[in-house]
Amino acid sequence: MTTSQDILNGNRLALAKLLTKIENNAPEGRDALIELFPHTGKAHLIGVTGAPGTGKSSLVNQLALHYRKVEDKKIAILAVDPSSPFTGGAVLGDRVRMRDLSGDEKVFIRSMATRGSLGGLAQSTANMTQVFDAAGFDIVIIETVGAGQSEVDVARLAHTTLVVEAPGLGDDIQAIKAGILEIADILVVNKGDRPGVENTEKALKSMLDLAHPTEKIFRHHGKSMNVDVPKQNTNTKLWIPPIQRTISTEGVGIAELAELISKHATHLLSGEGWSSRVRIRLQVEMEALIQESLMNRFRQDISKEKYDEVFEKVFQRNISPWEAVKMLMNGRLK
Amino acid sequence: MTTSQDILNGNRLALAKLLTKIENNAPEGRDALIELFPHTGKAHLIGVTGAPGTGKSSLVNQLALHYRKVEDKKIAILAVDPSSPFTGGAVLGDRVRMRDLSGDEKVFIRSMATRGSLGGLAQSTANMTQVFDAAGFDIVIIETVGAGQSEVDVARLAHTTLVVEAPGLGDDIQAIKAGILEIADILVVNKGDRPGVENTEKALKSMLDLAHPTEKIFRHHGKSMNVDVPKQNTNTKLWIPPIQRTISTEGVGIAELAELISKHATHLLSGEGWSSRVRIRLQVEMEALIQESLMNRFRQDISKEKYDEVFEKVFQRNISPWEAVKMLMNGRLK
Repeated sequence: MTTSQDILNGNRLALAKLLTKIENNAPEGRDALIELFPHTGKAHLIGVTGAPGTGKSSLVNQLALHYRKVEDKKIAILAVDPSSPFTGGAVLGDRVRMRDLSGDEKVFIRSMATRGSLGGLAQSTANMTQVFDAAGFDIVIIETVGAGQSEVDVARLAHTTLVVEAPGLGDDIQAIKAGILEIADILVVNKGDRPGVENTEKALKSMLDLAHPTEKIFRHHGKSMNVDVPKQNTNTKLWIPPIQRTISTEGVGIAELAELISKHATHLLSGEGWSSRVRIRLQVEMEALIQESLMNRFRQDISKEKYDEVFEKVFQRNISPWEAVKMLMNGRLK
Repeated sequence: MTTSQDILNGNRLALAKLLTKIENNAPEGRDALIELFPHTGKAHLIGVTGAPGTGKSSLVNQLALHYRKVEDKKIAILAVDPSSPFTGGAVLGDRVRMRDLSGDEKVFIRSMATRGSLGGLAQSTANMTQVFDAAGFDIVIIETVGAGQSEVDVARLAHTTLVVEAPGLGDDIQAIKAGILEIADILVVNKGDRPGVENTEKALKSMLDLAHPTEKIFRHHGKSMNVDVPKQNTNTKLWIPPIQRTISTEGVGIAELAELISKHATHLLSGEGWSSRVRIRLQVEMEALIQESLMNRFRQDISKEKYDEVFEKVFQRNISPWEAVKMLMNGRLK
C-alpha cells in the first residue's frame, strides 16, 4: 500500500511521516503530494496571525476544542514559526498545547519552523495544508506569528484569516497596522479581561473605517505572473471584518468566533470569493514551483567554476551583480 | 550629468529620486546601480530589528543623533516596514522621527513598505543600501520590524545586527526566541526604566548561555546555491553578543551602544568576519537576480494561453501543480 493510500485511510503515523518528508523537501514527499492532490479542495483553511503576546496559541486551542466538542469536526493545526528561522524547533509550544487536545484521534497538531529560505516556508506550509486536506480534516488552522511576510503568506493560503490583537501591546504607532487590517477577515481582540480592551477595539474600529475593506489582497496578487484576478462581482455583498472580543484562557467568545468563521465561509461560497481565493493560492504555488524548477535547471547548466569566476569579479567590485548575472545567463544561451 | 554622478556628488534630490526608482523597480534604477556599484563597500551596515513596542525607532533616532553630534558621521536610515505589505506607506513613522533629525544635511531617512512580493523587499533593501553606500554615508542603519523573514533578511544584509527587546512584552513563550538570538550581534534591552528589566536581561542571558553563538547564519546560508561558506577561522576570537540596557527616550545607554557597535566592527575586521558577511550578502543578491532573470525569460517563452490552459487543469484538480509545472517546463525545452 502506498503512503498516499495510508493517508487517505486516516493513518496518523503515515501522515506524520509524510509531513516530515515534506518539511525536509524529500522527493517521496513530492510523489505523495502529486497522488494526494486530486483529493484536496474540501477543507476550510483558517489562518490565524498576530503579534507575540496576543495569546494566539491558546485561542487556537480553544477554537479546536470547540470544533471537536460542539461540532465534532476533524481538526488539523499547523503552527508555523517564522521567528525561529534556524533551529527547526518550536517544540515547547507543542507540548504546552498538547495537554488539552492530546489523545483525540480527530485532532492533529504539527509545528514547523522556517528553514530560512525565501519562499520555502510558504511552500512547505501550502504542501502540508494539502496533505491535511486530502487526509479528510474538515478544518485546517494555520497559525503564524505576525508581523511581516508570514502574515501575507497565511492570508494567501487561507480561506478565512483571523488577526489577533490584545490590549496593552499597542502603545506604539507600529502596533496596529493598516496592512494587517487588509489581510484580516475577522479581527479578534483576545485577553478581553485586560484593561484597555475598549481602547483596542475603538482603535481597530476607526482603522476599519479608514481602510477600504475590499478584496485588496486579490488585486495585489494580480501583479504576479500570469495570475488572473477575477473581476470583483459587484453583486457580491462586501465583507466588513467583524471584531470579536475573546478571553481564550476562559473560553469566552469562542463559540461566537466559530460562528463568525462559519459566516465568513458562507459569505465566500455565496459569491466568487471562495473559488477566487483557491485560484490565487494555486497560482502562487505554481509560480513558486516554476521558480524552483528554473533554479534547479540553472544550477545544472552553469558549472561551479564558471559561477565562482564571475562572482569573484563582483566581490572585487569590478562588475555589478546585475552584470554578472547577465554574463551567466548569456553563457547559458550559447 | 548622469544620476550616478549627481549621487556621488552628494545631491540629495537625485538620491531621493533614485531610491524611488529602485523601490518601483524602474529600469533606470538598475542602470544607476550598475554605475554606482564600484563605489560601494565602504559603509558600515547596521541592522536593527525587534518586535513592535520595543521602541526600536526611537532607539535608531538616538543612535543617529549620537553619530551626528559626537562622531560627525554621515548617516542614512532605511526603515523597512514589512508589516504594511499593501499600502506602500509608513509615512507616519517618518514624520515622527523627522522632528529630531530634520534639516541635517548629513542625515537621510527613508521608509519603505514591502510590496508583498516574495524576495522583492529584500532585494530593494539591498539595492537602496548600495546607493547610500555609494553616496558616501558612513553608517547605514536598516531598521525592520521583527519577527520573521524580514529579520533574517536584515541579518543577511548587515555587518552588525542589533536585536531590540523590552520588558513587559515577553510573558509569552514566543516572545524571546532562540532564532532571534542567533542573528543578534548585540542585544539591546530598551525601555530600561520599566519594571521587569532585570528579568528580561536574565532571560536573555540564560538563552545566550544555551545558544551556540557561532556564526550560524553563515552555515545556514551555505545551503543556498553556490554560496561558499568560508571555513570558520579558529584563530578568530568568538563574538558573544553583549547585552546593552538603554532608555532611548532619554538617551541613556546610547553612547555605550555605539561603542559596542564599533567594537563589533573591529572584531569583524580583525578576522574573516567582515569579508565573509560581504561575500554572503553579494551571493544572496546574485541568487535573487538570477531567479528574477529566469522568471522573466520564462514569462517570455510561455504564452499566456498555454499557461492558462495548463493552470485550468490544476484548478479542476485533474493534475497537481507539480505535474503542471513539469508540463510547462518540458514544453519550453522543445
